Amino acid sequence: MTRITVINPNTSAELTDAIALAAREVSGAGVTVRGVHPADGVPSVESHAEEAIAAVGVLAQVREHQADTDAYVVACFGDTGVQAAREVATCPVVGMTEAALQTACLVSHRFVVITLPARTVAHSDRVVRALGLEHRCSVVAVDVPVAELVGGSTHLLDAFTDAARTAMAEDGAEAVVLGCAGLADLVGPLSRAIGVPVVDGVAAAVGIATGLVAMGLNTSRANTFAAVELP
Amino acid sequence: MTRITVINPNTSAELTDAIALAAREVSGAGVTVRGVHPADGVPSVESHAEEAIAAVGVLAQVREHQADTDAYVVACFGDTGVQAAREVATCPVVGMTEAALQTACLVSHRFVVITLPARTVAHSDRVVRALGLEHRCSVVAVDVPVAELVGGSTHLLDAFTDAARTAMAEDGAEAVVLGCAGLADLVGPLSRAIGVPVVDGVAAAVGIATGLVAMGLNTSRANTFAAVELP
Amino acid sequence: MTRITVINPNTSAELTDAIALAAREVSGAGVTVRGVHPADGVPSVESHAEEAIAAVGVLAQVREHQADTDAYVVACFGDTGVQAAREVATCPVVGMTEAALQTACLVSHRFVVITLPARTVAHSDRVVRALGLEHRCSVVAVDVPVAELVGGSTHLLDAFTDAARTAMAEDGAEAVVLGCAGLADLVGPLSRAIGVPVVDGVAAAVGIATGLVAMGLNTSRANTFAAVELP
Amino acid sequence: MTRITVINPNTSAELTDAIALAAREVSGAGVTVRGVHPADGVPSVESHAEEAIAAVGVLAQVREHQADTDAYVVACFGDTGVQAAREVATCPVVGMTEAALQTACLVSHRFVVITLPARTVAHSDRVVRALGLEHRCSVVAVDVPVAELVGGSTHLLDAFTDAARTAMAEDGAEAVVLGCAGLADLVGPLSRAIGVPVVDGVAAAVGIATGLVAMGLNTSRANTFAAVELP
Amino acid sequence: MTRITVINPNTSAELTDAIALAAREVSGAGVTVRGVHPADGVPSVESHAEEAIAAVGVLAQVREHQADTDAYVVACFGDTGVQAAREVATCPVVGMTEAALQTACLVSHRFVVITLPARTVAHSDRVVRALGLEHRCSVVAVDVPVAELVGGSTHLLDAFTDAARTAMAEDGAEAVVLGCAGLADLVGPLSRAIGVPVVDGVAAAVGIATGLVAMGLNTSRANTFAAVELP
Amino acid sequence: MTRITVINPNTSAELTDAIALAAREVSGAGVTVRGVHPADGVPSVESHAEEAIAAVGVLAQVREHQADTDAYVVACFGDTGVQAAREVATCPVVGMTEAALQTACLVSHRFVVITLPARTVAHSDRVVRALGLEHRCSVVAVDVPVAELVGGSTHLLDAFTDAARTAMAEDGAEAVVLGCAGLADLVGPLSRAIGVPVVDGVAAAVGIATGLVAMGLNTSRANTFAAVELP
Repeated sequence: MTRITVINPNTSAELTDAIALAAREVSGAGVTVRGVHPADGVPSVESHAEEAIAAVGVLAQVREHQADTDAYVVACFGDTGVQAAREVATCPVVGMTEAALQTACLVSHRFVVITLPARTVAHSDRVVRALGLEHRCSVVAVDVPVAELVGGSTHLLDAFTDAARTAMAEDGAEAVVLGCAGLADLVGPLSRAIGVPVVDGVAAAVGIATGLVAMGLNTSRANTFAAVELP
Repeated sequence: MTRITVINPNTSAELTDAIALAAREVSGAGVTVRGVHPADGVPSVESHAEEAIAAVGVLAQVREHQADTDAYVVACFGDTGVQAAREVATCPVVGMTEAALQTACLVSHRFVVITLPARTVAHSDRVVRALGLEHRCSVVAVDVPVAELVGGSTHLLDAFTDAARTAMAEDGAEAVVLGCAGLADLVGPLSRAIGVPVVDGVAAAVGIATGLVAMGLNTSRANTFAAVELP
Repeated sequence: MTRITVINPNTSAELTDAIALAAREVSGAGVTVRGVHPADGVPSVESHAEEAIAAVGVLAQVREHQADTDAYVVACFGDTGVQAAREVATCPVVGMTEAALQTACLVSHRFVVITLPARTVAHSDRVVRALGLEHRCSVVAVDVPVAELVGGSTHLLDAFTDAARTAMAEDGAEAVVLGCAGLADLVGPLSRAIGVPVVDGVAAAVGIATGLVAMGLNTSRANTFAAVELP
Repeated sequence: MTRITVINPNTSAELTDAIALAAREVSGAGVTVRGVHPADGVPSVESHAEEAIAAVGVLAQVREHQADTDAYVVACFGDTGVQAAREVATCPVVGMTEAALQTACLVSHRFVVITLPARTVAHSDRVVRALGLEHRCSVVAVDVPVAELVGGSTHLLDAFTDAARTAMAEDGAEAVVLGCAGLADLVGPLSRAIGVPVVDGVAAAVGIATGLVAMGLNTSRANTFAAVELP
Repeated sequence: MTRITVINPNTSAELTDAIALAAREVSGAGVTVRGVHPADGVPSVESHAEEAIAAVGVLAQVREHQADTDAYVVACFGDTGVQAAREVATCPVVGMTEAALQTACLVSHRFVVITLPARTVAHSDRVVRALGLEHRCSVVAVDVPVAELVGGSTHLLDAFTDAARTAMAEDGAEAVVLGCAGLADLVGPLSRAIGVPVVDGVAAAVGIATGLVAMGLNTSRANTFAAVELP
Repeated sequence: MTRITVINPNTSAELTDAIALAAREVSGAGVTVRGVHPADGVPSVESHAEEAIAAVGVLAQVREHQADTDAYVVACFGDTGVQAAREVATCPVVGMTEAALQTACLVSHRFVVITLPARTVAHSDRVVRALGLEHRCSVVAVDVPVAELVGGSTHLLDAFTDAARTAMAEDGAEAVVLGCAGLADLVGPLSRAIGVPVVDGVAAAVGIATGLVAMGLNTSRANTFAAVELP
């Protein structure tokens, strides 16, 4: 049995539930998925300042669930706290952003991240550049707040379809990465609308994390991510 | 049931069997792994010329096994024929090199590919650059021919240990990617010897391919990898 | 006497003849140009899968013409089989794509590749990136099949003129690279229409190959391109 | 009068005092420098996890000192919390790392960052890459904990001299960036020992911040760094 | 007292006066700014050929004013002669372009250089690339000759506003760098019109040069910029 | 008849003669090569300051020889004045550095530039980066002044052999670019000593320039290199 703990870095229990539900649908046999979120923090992560606060919440969740977790998935576009979590966790940690970008590379030559709101484009840029994918990926935004995703995101289908079609025509995008947790319900409708692969990073991260566990791989403790004891 | 077909691009049945055996050990519940190889071609892939011949063999194998395959893994460092295979296959295709590099990114800040023989460093460089990972990855070689791997590779443990330690000291490598199929039996001994994660690309690719199937993702047909009918 | 063998990787004799005819017009005194093509293979190269098949044909042509060749030019945009040919040939090998891109760098600050059909943009991207020229070159396509070039390409003048003018206005392109063999008859009309240099890669490669022979330079056998004996 | 508030992200009052003292020595006429640090947090920042905690402390300090600050300097190599601080501060924010790297570019062709401890090389890499300076800068470490700097760092002169000389000989480094706050007392001895410019990022940041205030420049509120109201 | 000598590389006394006047407005207490220009040379620098001539004039000015200069600022977008000046000057040298680009990095995620005339975009590209900032900066032009700036540049406000708004909408620019000396009078009107920071490189360079002097930093003489004795 | 004028940017007639002599040996049938140099300037180009002076001399030589030149070659490693010469010349201009680097790309996977003296490594770096070849090329130096080349350079064979062998072992170099004009007499001895291709940039540029003339290609006048009238 592989136990994946998906950490939603914000404090919205409704979003946590939606994320975990979607993740379970793609998890393989013998894999359990649990969703958790910090007790304190911010209701959504739409700025660097909110990322800073949320990252501390991610660390707290990692420490709380060590005993019954085989791999963590961090479910926030921008991979808030993932590097820090690698130092604190005793098992592998996968960010939804890195997972989504890597997955898109395997099914397309070029692709587009459609994130939200507009001010978080820089957060996506950061992960794209850390992975060296500027030459294969463009980043655009649908400028709505994360709050609009509570209760479902299918009302954003037209906006995402427009953004995707523009990127396909202008940037040669051949696949779409959904740039926010909580958009899993858009995968089906959007891929049907535009006819190309649509990647939800949480789903991608669950699959990749399952593979890491199967291979017995954990974060290297050689240097950068050596274990840290927090106060 | 997810059916993964691992294509060994060279004609060595012994290597095919060893690769498939190792892949099965890390495949999850509900996943079957079969190893195949071209009937004609080259006994090993150690040059661009041999890659050219082997790539045609990969395409033939893709066509032969379409009916009972849910995802292909191409088991040759350098990802020979993977792009072409994406056009011909009706399901996802994952190269062992891209899978290994992506996996190493998730467990280390910097890592090293140890490939063989020395003349194939350029083949690794090609994939590293296609994925944009020059800033996180160095490539070195143990200069022995692929033929030496038939029957097992643990006799190369000292050579790999030396190469890994040099890269750890000089390049800051924190994980190792094994730069050849057929080295899976080195994963355990080498990781114990050097104390950092060691990644076998075939194992990594099997996990990633399983995830793609679970998500229902296939290669984008939008443009670059639109289906091709070969004569 | 310098003997250049231009290899057309597809099986169209008509295209071979047109390419060789155009190449002869720019070859210097004391240079002979012969056009050849594989006996078997694909009628055009418009996908990675067709590239794989064509590359094997390039190798066969290299082996067949060693005795009376001083340098090979591979006449397929994307430089199909060029790296492999360097290992097998006993003399220098120049790809039309690398030759065209290098030439454009010498007559402009930024330039555009206009290739065809649209799905092969990724093939141009690959060579642009291998040479490190992303910062000076954009790649666009006129979406017609290669088959349309048989018998001449001047009917595509308007389409190329439009694509060039767009790239000049939007990307700052100051020169044009024709992204396919068999477009040499467009060089004159297009350069007159848009008033900037237009580069045919085959012509560029013939000049560069002549220079390599004059300098007595051959492919380095030190490592990557050491000689290979094929079965 | 220009009022610079230097934020030490860790909780060491002794380090805060040393940093502020050194900063005052290079501040121009009409500039006052005050050093502050969070009430709660970590005694030193030597990991991503500690960075996460320290970043929240940086934000708290920014909010506390808005009324009497014209520009903030964040005195932690790695620029912990700088992006977040830009959103919360009503005035400019300069990180010591970005300031040091920019300064070194103006006095050398290539330079080296000597940071500490070894595990934080990745933190320097992150800022180097965000600024695009990989081609001009190498990063090495003297592997001692930050705690060793309390009370002064001149006992590390030999270690820094050795690291600098190696980088000068092997990487062509022509200047040195001190990769930690609290090393200002090394600037004089080290530059005398090795004969090339030595840059302390806090000093550099104070000068640059003074210039920003003189020009009336503040962080752009257009998008990425639009103001954020924290709870 | 810090004495900054601003070198206008062209021979326009009127432009020199305007540049020095603007620079003085942002210089701190204890800083004097003098403007100088070559006796012979070109009336404006709008091409590589004019840059070549102007660079020799910059060197002559450096040599003439050594005795009473603590730092030089070169006031020509493209940083004509700055590298050479570093070898000849006995004190630090700062180019207006590098200063502007570095400053813009501190107040925005992405920004745009608006230069003039159009043919000099390549000059900006050169400095952007030398600093590694392609990922954060786009370069566009208002196509008017430098001669139009004599007597003031506020008549270009509409053209710059349009260019800035386009870059903000299409490239995500959040700040503007004025890509020519002699545009300082546009800083106020343009920033009011578009609501984002507008950077004049001469002003930026004066502040940065003042900081270098305060820190006692000079160009490294280790290798690249070792002193040169000209005939 | 194709008339190539090789411009030696320094004032050494002896070097000019040696360069022209070597260039003639590789020029094809129907090609004449003449060597010229500025009447005034510097005896050698070993710094940015000397480059600045030499560039003006290059422009003067271009203007003097327009009537009987079909293409210019600039024979100074670093390509001093080449961009400016493109604006002033009525025919193509090729720098020896860009020609050498492009040529090395065609005969090797990775290569090394061995330049002199050590302080000019940055000049090579500049051209390497302008062409985007950092990933394929390292730059090292033999630290002797250019003056030592007058009368021949074969006394430097041991130094170049050592530098080449080190680069082959440590950087994977498979070919060598000679990083100075006037080293043509080293091509034969060095290539025999180390067994890999050795490229003289002047020879390479003559061949490439001949090809440009044969194709009727000239510098684009669209924007960056539009014609300039100098005073």
